[in-house]
Amino acid sequence: MPTYKAPVRDARFIINEVLDIGHLVDLPGFAAATPDLVATVLEESGKFAAEVCAPLNLPGDQAGCQRDPDGSVATPPGFKAAYDQFVASGWGTLSQPEAFGGQGLPHVLGFAFEEFLTSANQSFSMYSQLTTGAVGAMLAKASAELQQTYLPKMISGEWSGTMNLTEPQCGTDLGLIRTRAVPNGDGSHAITGTKIFISAGEHDLTGNIIHLVLARLPDAPEGTRGISLFVVPKFLVGADGALGARNAVSCGAIEHKMGIHGNATCVMNYDGATGFLVGEENKGLAAMFIMMNAARLGVGIQGLAQAEVAYQNGVAYALERRQGRALSGAADPGQPADLLFVHPDVRRMLMDAKAFTEGMRALALWGGLLADLVQVAPTEEERQEADDLLGLLTPVIKGYGTDKGYDTATAMQQVWGGHGFIVENGMEQFVRDARITMIYEGANGVQAMDLVGRKLPANMGRAIQLFFNKVDRQCEAAKGDARLADLAGRVEKANGELKAATMWLMQNAMTRPDNAGAGAHHYMHITGIVALGLMWLRMGRTATAALDAGAGEAAFYEAKLTTARYFGERFTPDAGALRRKLEAGAETMMALPPEAFATA
Amino acid sequence: MPTYKAPVRDARFIINEVLDIGHLVDLPGFAAATPDLVATVLEESGKFAAEVCAPLNLPGDQAGCQRDPDGSVATPPGFKAAYDQFVASGWGTLSQPEAFGGQGLPHVLGFAFEEFLTSANQSFSMYSQLTTGAVGAMLAKASAELQQTYLPKMISGEWSGTMNLTEPQCGTDLGLIRTRAVPNGDGSHAITGTKIFISAGEHDLTGNIIHLVLARLPDAPEGTRGISLFVVPKFLVGADGALGARNAVSCGAIEHKMGIHGNATCVMNYDGATGFLVGEENKGLAAMFIMMNAARLGVGIQGLAQAEVAYQNGVAYALERRQGRALSGAADPGQPADLLFVHPDVRRMLMDAKAFTEGMRALALWGGLLADLVQVAPTEEERQEADDLLGLLTPVIKGYGTDKGYDTATAMQQVWGGHGFIVENGMEQFVRDARITMIYEGANGVQAMDLVGRKLPANMGRAIQLFFNKVDRQCEAAKGDARLADLAGRVEKANGELKAATMWLMQNAMTRPDNAGAGAHHYMHITGIVALGLMWLRMGRTATAALDAGAGEAAFYEAKLTTARYFGERFTPDAGALRRKLEAGAETMMALPPEAFATA
Repeated sequence: MPTYKAPVRDARFIINEVLDIGHLVDLPGFAAATPDLVATVLEESGKFAAEVCAPLNLPGDQAGCQRDPDGSVATPPGFKAAYDQFVASGWGTLSQPEAFGGQGLPHVLGFAFEEFLTSANQSFSMYSQLTTGAVGAMLAKASAELQQTYLPKMISGEWSGTMNLTEPQCGTDLGLIRTRAVPNGDGSHAITGTKIFISAGEHDLTGNIIHLVLARLPDAPEGTRGISLFVVPKFLVGADGALGARNAVSCGAIEHKMGIHGNATCVMNYDGATGFLVGEENKGLAAMFIMMNAARLGVGIQGLAQAEVAYQNGVAYALERRQGRALSGAADPGQPADLLFVHPDVRRMLMDAKAFTEGMRALALWGGLLADLVQVAPTEEERQEADDLLGLLTPVIKGYGTDKGYDTATAMQQVWGGHGFIVENGMEQFVRDARITMIYEGANGVQAMDLVGRKLPANMGRAIQLFFNKVDRQCEAAKGDARLADLAGRVEKANGELKAATMWLMQNAMTRPDNAGAGAHHYMHITGIVALGLMWLRMGRTATAALDAGAGEAAFYEAKLTTARYFGERFTPDAGALRRKLEAGAETMMALPPEAFATA
Repeated sequence: MPTYKAPVRDARFIINEVLDIGHLVDLPGFAAATPDLVATVLEESGKFAAEVCAPLNLPGDQAGCQRDPDGSVATPPGFKAAYDQFVASGWGTLSQPEAFGGQGLPHVLGFAFEEFLTSANQSFSMYSQLTTGAVGAMLAKASAELQQTYLPKMISGEWSGTMNLTEPQCGTDLGLIRTRAVPNGDGSHAITGTKIFISAGEHDLTGNIIHLVLARLPDAPEGTRGISLFVVPKFLVGADGALGARNAVSCGAIEHKMGIHGNATCVMNYDGATGFLVGEENKGLAAMFIMMNAARLGVGIQGLAQAEVAYQNGVAYALERRQGRALSGAADPGQPADLLFVHPDVRRMLMDAKAFTEGMRALALWGGLLADLVQVAPTEEERQEADDLLGLLTPVIKGYGTDKGYDTATAMQQVWGGHGFIVENGMEQFVRDARITMIYEGANGVQAMDLVGRKLPANMGRAIQLFFNKVDRQCEAAKGDARLADLAGRVEKANGELKAATMWLMQNAMTRPDNAGAGAHHYMHITGIVALGLMWLRMGRTATAALDAGAGEAAFYEAKLTTARYFGERFTPDAGALRRKLEAGAETMMALPPEAFATA
């Protein structure tokens, strides 16, 4: 049975020391987020995740969700009781607006909790995460009446939410949506169609489920310009807020999947179900993208979260299992063999995981802070800057974070050798659960194209220039300190590769758009490396300052400096290789006709 | 339901044209292996794999193996009938010695068939592959009497074989084995102990199961110098060859695993079972290593095989599923969307898979040919050269082949988007089945250490020097042809990185052995890249020669040249990055104490 403990000290280090949100005390929401409150929330939410949710993870994978012939779905044993406790403790309300019963705390804190909850039990965490996404779209676009009717109970967790985009013929390409919405004449619409892959589409955790559904009005233009967004509750809600009749929406089947067995992935049938327009007609995609951008950051955190829990269990096994002898001579001569921990190739995997998870946590939490600053930074310039950076980093956090999260889970399974392949040990579940994060909320190839095709050229490259400058400044500031000089030099070099890759795209993608597509994956990964390098420089500078100030916990800060150096040594060299691949362009890649791929 | 077709044309290209085994007609076994016979065997064995075994793969994963309380194990529905057909067709006898009923054909042909069979159904293929491994050890080390008793029926497939190494406390480190062998006084031994992770340990496919078991004699020295190898049949065999009493060996449980559900992975209990010594007392490890080296090549082929079948299904989906529009403008304006195939990021994944599988197939089949030449090359010098190269390449074929095989299966699942996560589509099974190949027969970290710690320094680096020279010669020969010059330049550069990495290890691993361990993984991957580069140069030169000769099938050969160029562009750049990681050495990697890995 795998174990989990929330990395509270590390999250506290990032939030209170590196990002230092104490300095933002004058901003809305930040006044309450004192270092002490941050520490308490992390500690207590971490306990909830580790003690209540983690023990249900492996059994939940085994039991899966069960659909009754009547269309109802039972979640795995224990999920309902844990969810009730989640609601009672108010964990879903952390970063939600006070106007609807939330605690109004910064998103950066909510992001840390999302990591903990996902590490403990990704399937369980998704029920509330989908709700958070739906709430985000409704906060941005729904009428005051819809907000008042649905948001308080969604934010409290009494009701849950879903996102209904995908249809059998339509995944990435939302222009292909066929679900119809016909006006009922009373302001509501009749929604008809089939949606697939609907996470948390039906379950037994909440009294109502609020579906956000993309559909077409009868006279809608073709393609993405003709899509509208609707709220479709499982149970209609009366003017008094009481639950009314069952709506004509039902779960037709649940999918058999590689992982996240504890989350019900549903085929949802809408059969003239009553829906209520969110925002303007035919502008549904814009509303959905609000939800999707937040969800993408959340999925990036899922990648981190699976890497983290796998890492903890990789470490535990390496410090318990004895095989072979250290290359430098027996480490424990009194024992029949040494710990796996002494073997460099095992240590390589553990250090890779450590450097990734700690760096990625810093990047994801910085993303959370940027999400706050977009809304509450004091000046328009600062809000714009936060928005530029967050827009640029969202596909990187999602795409790079989940690619590496899966790799890390796989490597930690490798530490366990044959025992990692055995279901009861739990390592293989981390890999299976991590796998979906590379796919949903926009497959990682879509993220890469979002970065290269949309975020990069926007406003004449304003966002990436800002990013370059941030990295350069950190390199400059760190170079003079012998403890950070090696890392600074390597990150500067990687940043140079990113600049060169950017230049190459500017010069070659306009004339041949396929050159952008051919290099997008590589570009996303270079950006991920540089972004983690930036975070390791910031963490390194925080650590050196703490050590110089004699702040105590010297071993903790020293370990940060060692891990930072390791990141420089083992992560940054890939930037150059990725740039060279990118610069090969699309020509050879796109040269072969379909027949050349046929097996003969 | 996924599909599979054996890549017969490609295997024929490699065996008949690139390796050109027709030139070896004077060597034992090769006389019969005419180009026509090769073509026929590939065609027919490919049909057997695709038509009989592939349809059982997904259902076999779903059904799994079932253990009855009496200890018997049922394989998935259809396996028994397919296995009977396998035996009746004699597919297991291809490369086995004629003295025991084999066909005596070259191993290179048997290797091609192993790929087909594994692509079709890895779980099924393992039942016969384990037998082949056991046969190999017995051919090398067992007495004539034991050989005569067991080999004919094992080679025909009427009986199967297993390898019993692992125990609960003992995986990689075989010195920790505790299973005991006590002389019975009649030349046999009583074997007592528990073995775990025994693939094909118990099943219903064959009339007898011949276990090869590592155990310790009462007075054996400690560690690996005190291990002996025994044959322990499930049913004792009388002097007349008839089956006698049930031996005291039984399956105590079957494991729940991430993948290869159709193969029974057993806990085997030996309770004073009658065993017969194979080879000399306390020299069991040497015998087992004969089996293991062959098995490692086989596992490398499994990595290739999973990549191949995943690739075929990735291609099929990319040519069927429509989402979005080509970046260069609609490719099929009459359709609501373009094929996935037009998107560069999809094509990148397909071309990566194509370049890997075709290159890896060439490398694996070259390995098969080297295994032949070790035995039958006309001069001692040629046999030695083949042995050096095969020894060097075995950990690379296993480690690099399976690391990349898993990555490729994952990427092909990614092509399918959300549908790749759904069990019924079969893509996720390829990933789960591929996952074990990185672990068993020596985890890939063990392969990397075998390469760096054993194969590299052996005979003063004779093997790697030979390899360098082979690569240099191919680069030199290809440079002058404009169609291959780019690839030749890139492979030469990658070979330069490998030389530099080798030099670094020579200078730094003697003084600090951890430096070898810290770079072993990277070194194995650089070697893999250069080895595939070598094969792409050889395939490229074969293709240009065929084109220049106007041999027909121009599109086939042109595609080889394009894929070769792609390999150069997208695979070789990693060699430099890997070398730079390797040169970072062990210092930072090994610096942190266990406490620094604890979650706080």
